[in-house]
Amino acid sequence: MSKKVAVILSGSGVFDGSEIHEAVLTLLSLDRRGASYQCFAPDIAQHHVINHVTGEEMDESRNVLVESARIARGEVKPVRELKAEDFDALIVPGGFGAAKNLSDFAFSGSKLRVQIGVSTAAKAFSEAGKPVGLMCIAPAIAGRIFGEGVLATIGTDAETAAALEQTGVKHVECAVDDIVVDDNHKLVTTPAYMTAKSISEAAEGIDKLVDRVLLMV
Amino acid sequence: MSKKVAVILSGSGVFDGSEIHEAVLTLLSLDRRGASYQCFAPDIAQHHVINHVTGEEMDESRNVLVESARIARGEVKPVRELKAEDFDALIVPGGFGAAKNLSDFAFSGSKLRVQIGVSTAAKAFSEAGKPVGLMCIAPAIAGRIFGEGVLATIGTDAETAAALEQTGVKHVECAVDDIVVDDNHKLVTTPAYMTAKSISEAAEGIDKLVDRVLLMV
Repeated sequence: MSKKVAVILSGSGVFDGSEIHEAVLTLLSLDRRGASYQCFAPDIAQHHVINHVTGEEMDESRNVLVESARIARGEVKPVRELKAEDFDALIVPGGFGAAKNLSDFAFSGSKLRVQIGVSTAAKAFSEAGKPVGLMCIAPAIAGRIFGEGVLATIGTDAETAAALEQTGVKHVECAVDDIVVDDNHKLVTTPAYMTAKSISEAAEGIDKLVDRVLLMV
Repeated sequence: MSKKVAVILSGSGVFDGSEIHEAVLTLLSLDRRGASYQCFAPDIAQHHVINHVTGEEMDESRNVLVESARIARGEVKPVRELKAEDFDALIVPGGFGAAKNLSDFAFSGSKLRVQIGVSTAAKAFSEAGKPVGLMCIAPAIAGRIFGEGVLATIGTDAETAAALEQTGVKHVECAVDDIVVDDNHKLVTTPAYMTAKSISEAAEGIDKLVDRVLLMV
């Protein structure tokens, strides 16, 4: 039987949602390894909408679930329906959406709160001993999910690493094409576009993350 | 020197813009083969905005260039600035955006008109003898760009193939993991999500299209 993986998205676009390349590379990597996947997202308003040409905020509102459906070709479910018992593993791609919609790390730093549906689902995977993969800035939620001292990486950026340590994470530096594995917590992280200079570079780390997550199932 | 490829996007999302997987797989394929790429898109309003969960039209408007920037991580230019002399090849991913924003094939069928910036740029590549790759429904513009009798595919759907033939294209059936090559016109086409049942299937044909386009440079 093929392994079943839940993927939590946070919108569609690096500056206010899921980083699109990371999300698509995750789905490609899973599918090529014979794993099946189902995308989920919180059914909430995005924190804001960013014009991806200018980087400026736009005067409109969008829904995280509805925008995530663009990446998932319509096949996305509300994260409140995600039950850990139905899946073998969980993966969360990065993009600012992980720090603006799935949590408020971008604004609250060490005081971050994780969106309740995401928090409940991710904790259930952890408690069931099922592997979790977090990429790019998504490890910002690791301290809240796994508790003090969990090992994770956002790459090599000292300032972001320090902010992450304020949330309870023990940060480990990591090259773009590599992963950090916390075997005790079954958590795998990779820097992806925190460090990647190209889509191929991001793909290398993501492929390794997917390989390791599936191996841990 | 690395080969330079222009990629024309049509928004961000299969139902009203570029098919996101096809666009990202194209960029990945180019980057892995050592080619550089630059994304372009028309700076025009989308034909409409589709809720990708429900499939229904939303009461808002979005700009094709601005939404395409989500796929391009901000690095997208207006298609009117695309000069064939600056690039070795052109690739256009699919999604309904190719039939709603880059052209009006979805509404006008055989009477379709191609957006003027896209038409001017694509014709310039053709006239310069530079290869062009079109995937999914994007071959709808082939007849207008290359003229009567150009060989192209949208896969195996008889109704869409017949509509395409009304635009001057000589349609050739093609499996999802294969390509159709018109050597005289240096045009390469592949069905991608017109036929693909999974992201890996789409990737197979797209990799072949990119290989052949780069070989023709």
